[in-house]
Amino acid sequence: EYMDFFEPLPYLPPIPANNSLTPEKIELGKMLFFEPRISGSGVISCATCHNPALGWSDRIPTAVGHDGQVGNRNTPTVLNSGFLGSQFWDGREPDLEGQALGPIEAEIEMNMDLEAAIRRLKEFDIYHEHFAAAFPGEDDPIRAENIAFAIASFERTLNTPNSPLDRFLAGDVQAMSDSQVEGMKLFVDAGCVACHNGPALTDSGFHRFELPGSTDEGRFIVTGDEADMFAFRTPTLRNVAVTYPYFNNGSVDNLHDAVQLMGQQMLGQDFSDEELDNLVAFMHALTGEMPDLEIPALP
Amino acid sequence: EYMDFFEPLPYLPPIPANNSLTPEKIELGKMLFFEPRISGSGVISCATCHNPALGWSDRIPTAVGHDGQVGNRNTPTVLNSGFLGSQFWDGREPDLEGQALGPIEAEIEMNMDLEAAIRRLKEFDIYHEHFAAAFPGEDDPIRAENIAFAIASFERTLNTPNSPLDRFLAGDVQAMSDSQVEGMKLFVDAGCVACHNGPALTDSGFHRFELPGSTDEGRFIVTGDEADMFAFRTPTLRNVAVTYPYFNNGSVDNLHDAVQLMGQQMLGQDFSDEELDNLVAFMHALTGEMPDLEIPALP
Ligand code: HEC
Ligand code: HEC
Ligand code: HEC
Ligand code: HEC
Ligand SMILES: [Ca+2]
Ligand SMILES: [Ca+2]
Ligand SMILES: [Ca+2]
Ligand SMILES: [Mg+2]
Repeated sequence: EYMDFFEPLPYLPPIPANNSLTPEKIELGKMLFFEPRISGSGVISCATCHNPALGWSDRIPTAVGHDGQVGNRNTPTVLNSGFLGSQFWDGREPDLEGQALGPIEAEIEMNMDLEAAIRRLKEFDIYHEHFAAAFPGEDDPIRAENIAFAIASFERTLNTPNSPLDRFLAGDVQAMSDSQVEGMKLFVDAGCVACHNGPALTDSGFHRFELPGSTDEGRFIVTGDEADMFAFRTPTLRNVAVTYPYFNNGSVDNLHDAVQLMGQQMLGQDFSDEELDNLVAFMHALTGEMPDLEIPALP
Repeated sequence: EYMDFFEPLPYLPPIPANNSLTPEKIELGKMLFFEPRISGSGVISCATCHNPALGWSDRIPTAVGHDGQVGNRNTPTVLNSGFLGSQFWDGREPDLEGQALGPIEAEIEMNMDLEAAIRRLKEFDIYHEHFAAAFPGEDDPIRAENIAFAIASFERTLNTPNSPLDRFLAGDVQAMSDSQVEGMKLFVDAGCVACHNGPALTDSGFHRFELPGSTDEGRFIVTGDEADMFAFRTPTLRNVAVTYPYFNNGSVDNLHDAVQLMGQQMLGQDFSDEELDNLVAFMHALTGEMPDLEIPALP
């Protein structure tokens, strides 16, 4: 049965033992996610690039950060990022806690010294209250590790259940169109599921992908292992219809071409027009319900 | 009676005869307000500077726009902007319709040619649908004037009712603290109401204000009339506690100093510490309920 190859999205991703998911941390993490005062310019927050209006990404090929600087890589959505086995295109961080502080300090992203960011947060009474509530019993809770804990907690709530695929898997056979069902079957038969599997449709593994025009060495930069040259972590396919453009440098702007390139490069296969249409239709069945977000009122 | 000097905030500001307020225009206007693809960089929208998490402003002295360029003026909130008799610190636009297209083209803000912005919008089916629904019967509704109509309509819904002052005026004598009531009385007695009156606490008039360190010629730039040198349009005081920093160049970062400077410059009066405390407390009574916003899902 084709359906055995897929898993519905659970309500929550795995929660690490050292960072229990509390409402206080989630609320604080939300504030920090929208907080531009922890950037060097005072105007860039996580939500600038991971924009809730744009599928929690930015819909440009590669990210634009501090002073309009253009990066090399496409901004992945943070939706369902708690389900990933590692973070970043090259998997250089194991989890969301490890990931969270990087962009604050990155010169090309938020360009702010972490100590300065902490001093800035300490100027606001409301942050003292929220950190104390989220990390009770600590003498000096406004510190780097807790920023990471809080942001990661918020991100673990940004999940998109009830996509057509999820409803189909739950037994609602009307939830997907005929073309989407055909696409799902081909996705299995052609071998896409070898890499795109599990609740987020990624094995979180690294696979060589030679993207026309890209010189990004990918996983090799992290490991220095020749076998990892040009290898990238399989991205989630959840909400892929709203997270264009595609691939690590955002050079492909539509799903048709993205799926075709996957077939050619990963499977050595050239799909017919009808097959491509069905696969693309199936990609659209992976768009779930967006988180219902109340924008935080920052101090 | 002191209360006669104040007006509760109506549910809606005046609606112009040529731009009726429809749900379709409001929804479209919301999308455009959050739309970064109508900026040259593809990453700046109205909401970048008029950030809902920051009182629909940016909480920095002067705006940062395209490529990190820093402007000369403080970003006013768009909350209750439909109640203003003119737009911008120098009142150079009469209404929200006149205001809306300026920032898209301003090199230092969004830096995008209007024709290019229109072409960009036309790439999305969903904008064809939304413009057609908002402006029924038009052959080619995606045009500059309609962008302005839609954005202005959305802005007219961004009002903040039920502040402590409004509840007090409605008869709830507990809604303001004793200090706030004292501040309200002094606000009348000292003469602040001469300029800060009406539902938005502004006369929408222009008044000379010599801000230490500022060379901005204000209204003079618009009229060329010497009498308007260094004159600025009285800003709304609604939500003033959350729209720091203050004045046309954002050079004063707290209400205490802002109110003190107003007393000295506009009224030739030096308030005692207690008077200042009461006036500042009253300023806090002007913070209303923030609009309950559903972030739009952009195409
Ligand atoms: C200037 C744009 C920008 C800003 C600001 C930014 N990000 Fe990102 N984000 C990116 C880009 C680009 C990547 C991919 C980088 C890479 O793979 O090397 C990324 C990757 C991520 C990932 C990994 C997702 C995945 O699928 O691997 C997470 C999670 C994330 N960002 C969260 C955040 C948080 C939290 C903040 C704020 C503290 C933030 N980002 C600020 C652009 C940005
Ligand atoms: C051998 C592993 C593997 C196989 C097989 C595979 N993929 Fe991928 N897929 C990846 C990797 C790795 C990437 C990221 C490539 C990059 O951007 O560097 C990716 C990226 C994608 C993307 C772009 C996602 C984004 O957000 O940028 C789509 C769409 C996609 N795959 C669909 C498919 C489909 C459909 C198939 C089958 C026809 C398939 N993949 C087969 C590993 C695989
Ligand atoms: C780069 C920052 C920036 C962007 C982007 C921006 N604004 Fe503004 N906005 C400002 C500044 C600064 C002013 C004051 C300028 C002046 O008075 O000369 C202002 C003034 C206004 C005003 C007048 C309010 C008042 O009290 O007079 C309105 C309304 C407004 N903007 C709406 C918008 C809309 C709609 C957009 C998008 C189409 C937008 N703004 C984009 C910074 C920005
Ligand atoms: C003669 C007219 C006039 C009088 C009287 C007056 N104001 Fe103002 N007020 C203005 C103008 C004009 C500005 C804008 C000045 C600027 O930034 O260029 C302003 C700005 C302010 C601001 C800063 C608002 C912001 O968002 O930047 C506050 C607070 C304020 N006034 C409070 C008061 C108080 C309290 C009093 C009485 C003690 C008072 N004003 C008396 C005209 C007046
Ligand atoms: Ca993408
Ligand atoms: Ca809401
Ligand atoms: Ca201000
Ligand atoms: Mg809701």
